Amino acid sequence: MNSPHPTPLKVAVLGCGVVGSQVVRLLTTQSEDLAARVGAPLELAGVAVRRPDAPRDVDLPAGLVTTDAEALVRRDDVDLVVEVIGGIEPARSLILAALESGASVVSANKALIAEDGATLFAAADAAGRDLFYEAAVAGAIPILRPLRESLAGDRVTRVLGITNGTTNFVLDRMDSQGSGFAEALEEAQRLGYAEADPTADVEGFDAAAKAAILASLAFHTRVTANDVHREGISEVTASDVASAREMGAVVKLLSICELVEGPDGPAVSARVHPAMIPLSHPLASVREAYNAVFVESEAAGRLMFYGPGAGGPPTASAVLGDLVSAARNRVSQVRGAAETTYADLPVLPMGRTQTRYHIQLDVDDKAGVLASVAQAFAEHDVSLQTVRQEGRGDDAQLVVVSHRASDADLSATVETLSAMAWVREVSSVMRVEGDTEGALS
Amino acid sequence: MNSPHPTPLKVAVLGCGVVGSQVVRLLTTQSEDLAARVGAPLELAGVAVRRPDAPRDVDLPAGLVTTDAEALVRRDDVDLVVEVIGGIEPARSLILAALESGASVVSANKALIAEDGATLFAAADAAGRDLFYEAAVAGAIPILRPLRESLAGDRVTRVLGITNGTTNFVLDRMDSQGSGFAEALEEAQRLGYAEADPTADVEGFDAAAKAAILASLAFHTRVTANDVHREGISEVTASDVASAREMGAVVKLLSICELVEGPDGPAVSARVHPAMIPLSHPLASVREAYNAVFVESEAAGRLMFYGPGAGGPPTASAVLGDLVSAARNRVSQVRGAAETTYADLPVLPMGRTQTRYHIQLDVDDKAGVLASVAQAFAEHDVSLQTVRQEGRGDDAQLVVVSHRASDADLSATVETLSAMAWVREVSSVMRVEGDTEGALS
Repeated sequence: MNSPHPTPLKVAVLGCGVVGSQVVRLLTTQSEDLAARVGAPLELAGVAVRRPDAPRDVDLPAGLVTTDAEALVRRDDVDLVVEVIGGIEPARSLILAALESGASVVSANKALIAEDGATLFAAADAAGRDLFYEAAVAGAIPILRPLRESLAGDRVTRVLGITNGTTNFVLDRMDSQGSGFAEALEEAQRLGYAEADPTADVEGFDAAAKAAILASLAFHTRVTANDVHREGISEVTASDVASAREMGAVVKLLSICELVEGPDGPAVSARVHPAMIPLSHPLASVREAYNAVFVESEAAGRLMFYGPGAGGPPTASAVLGDLVSAARNRVSQVRGAAETTYADLPVLPMGRTQTRYHIQLDVDDKAGVLASVAQAFAEHDVSLQTVRQEGRGDDAQLVVVSHRASDADLSATVETLSAMAWVREVSSVMRVEGDTEGALS
Repeated sequence: MNSPHPTPLKVAVLGCGVVGSQVVRLLTTQSEDLAARVGAPLELAGVAVRRPDAPRDVDLPAGLVTTDAEALVRRDDVDLVVEVIGGIEPARSLILAALESGASVVSANKALIAEDGATLFAAADAAGRDLFYEAAVAGAIPILRPLRESLAGDRVTRVLGITNGTTNFVLDRMDSQGSGFAEALEEAQRLGYAEADPTADVEGFDAAAKAAILASLAFHTRVTANDVHREGISEVTASDVASAREMGAVVKLLSICELVEGPDGPAVSARVHPAMIPLSHPLASVREAYNAVFVESEAAGRLMFYGPGAGGPPTASAVLGDLVSAARNRVSQVRGAAETTYADLPVLPMGRTQTRYHIQLDVDDKAGVLASVAQAFAEHDVSLQTVRQEGRGDDAQLVVVSHRASDADLSATVETLSAMAWVREVSSVMRVEGDTEGALS
């Protein structure tokens, strides 16, 4: 029978904060469109919250609110579970319980996916259900689905992402207003772009989780947050940002995932650190708290995906997109494309990763200094792209940009330089990423 | 039985030009990755060409080449057909034959999808097979899948696309070098960015086909190329481009799709024309022959997708992405998300579409001119955002930017102005799109 009113699919939402309340709102206000796109109505089965009486942006039907998330996800009639609690536990146990009970799951939980995706994906495989998490990286920007599906016939070689809005806001303010890190962070906190405890953002933990997820999908290899080399932006100074400007570049906190040639064949490199990128690079113009992910692949070339990386409605949009896909799959009784880790490439340690460095030195202004600085680089097999010297009385400033070399060699060079008698101070050290097209020469 | 060597899926490729030869190359060089991602090997069943002996970028195994495309798509063992011939016929008949014979189809054919998608989608529905065409719009940039799937839980309100690389190259050259249209076009032809007969690109036919496809997906409504108002760039002058610059804007050929309030409720507006957009708009920085599609939606906000819009390898990347999806669906014996036109909104005629205008007039420099010009706008119910007057001896130049008004009222205003005694010439008329953020004030 071709029923005009197919059986509704029941949706349980875990968590009703900034994102959860928008998910509930969209489920209600878009219900007709959603039904047309899924092929069956989506019906809210329940919303699990910790504090039923907390103020929210959405009216929750009283009968649907529960504090017993576990019982909700285990209900026989629940087809789809949206997890927007965040953190490792109880989110992980609840997702596992949901899959075990036969529900498909949509999650926005980057920390959990990056730390223990393997357990969750295995559970989804065992249950034959979907586990989607587009909202975990770059909020509303569709990036995981394009990596998983649109680029499935191509070979991704590099992903460079501005995946943390807070740090991009801070660095953008430092760039546009010349302010220091502390001042810019304070402004971000005042405007609601940074948490009272900004550690997860500022020290790069959030961006590292996203790098792990991006690298896993791009290279069909399991990469966890622990595999990602991580440096935050708290040591970036106003002078670093000014130096970048002088060189036609801007400082961004980047999530960098690369397919590289390792000692034993292809390998993956995944890292998060502040870096100078030339103003001509499309990522350089990503301002304020916006996110963008730049993808390089063999056939497609250079792609960029840009949009709001956080916030209730944008994140809820990504969650709902996944929910429609998962629901459609329930209607056709199939699973969507799942994670593959068949490539199983080794993750290269940071020391072996190839990067370029921008180094600024205060040195004595006398004959032979330039030669001995150049010698220090040569000793460590690092070749130089440019050296610029500016005398200022009895001292001089040297700005050196290296060619690509291993991070270990570059670090060793910096150590050697720091110990040299006529080097007064290594005043700035920063990696250089993106095509340079002469901008940093 | 869990077979380690599942049955290969057989792929027929129709056409072996710039795109087809890259598709064949990727199928061969990426075969292991493709097999892992699909869950079964993809095997080239045959390549249909018109001239078997033409020189190509790829070595075709002699036994696989045929001039009988019809027989190839009707072969029982062909599971997937890639159509990269282009044009309406024989592409349409071949796609219909392929679907009828039970194959899934991947096409890069924007003209055909925009003109007669309805027939093709109905055939795909009847056959229960996939018909994917990501490569038809903006080459390698994943934009159709994000519209169809990632944003399925959101409400798209506007799509602004730079979807034609040739015209973007020409306009970019006019902007950066101050050259005229003819000169810039000649350069584009010399560099291979424009065809010897550039009509399809320059007069906006190509961009209109893409606008129809984007509007159909964004608004779940059937929009054909004939529904799209179309103006090309051949009348854009160096002086228009210079005027735009003066106002902090740049001229782009845009594919514009909007969800608007029509006389009888929601409606769709779809149009292609040159327009000024402020330099602060993300589309303004799309240079050379690059494409980008800017999407506004209620929850996700402002997203942009950027990348190469044409060329063999990028287009082949998009084709292969679709091919992997269609192949995976064959393995699981399901269909992917298909087109929906449930919203079935009316398409608003251009006259009713709301836009803004930038108008430049040479007028007599005497008292009362400004008042009577302002009066002409008021007569047609068009309110003004700014008027700037510059005296130059006995004549003056007036630059007027209107607020949003219907295109019919704006056109009527321009006619009235042209007929006024003290108006020596209406020297430039161009629509203004994108958020202005003061750039055009």
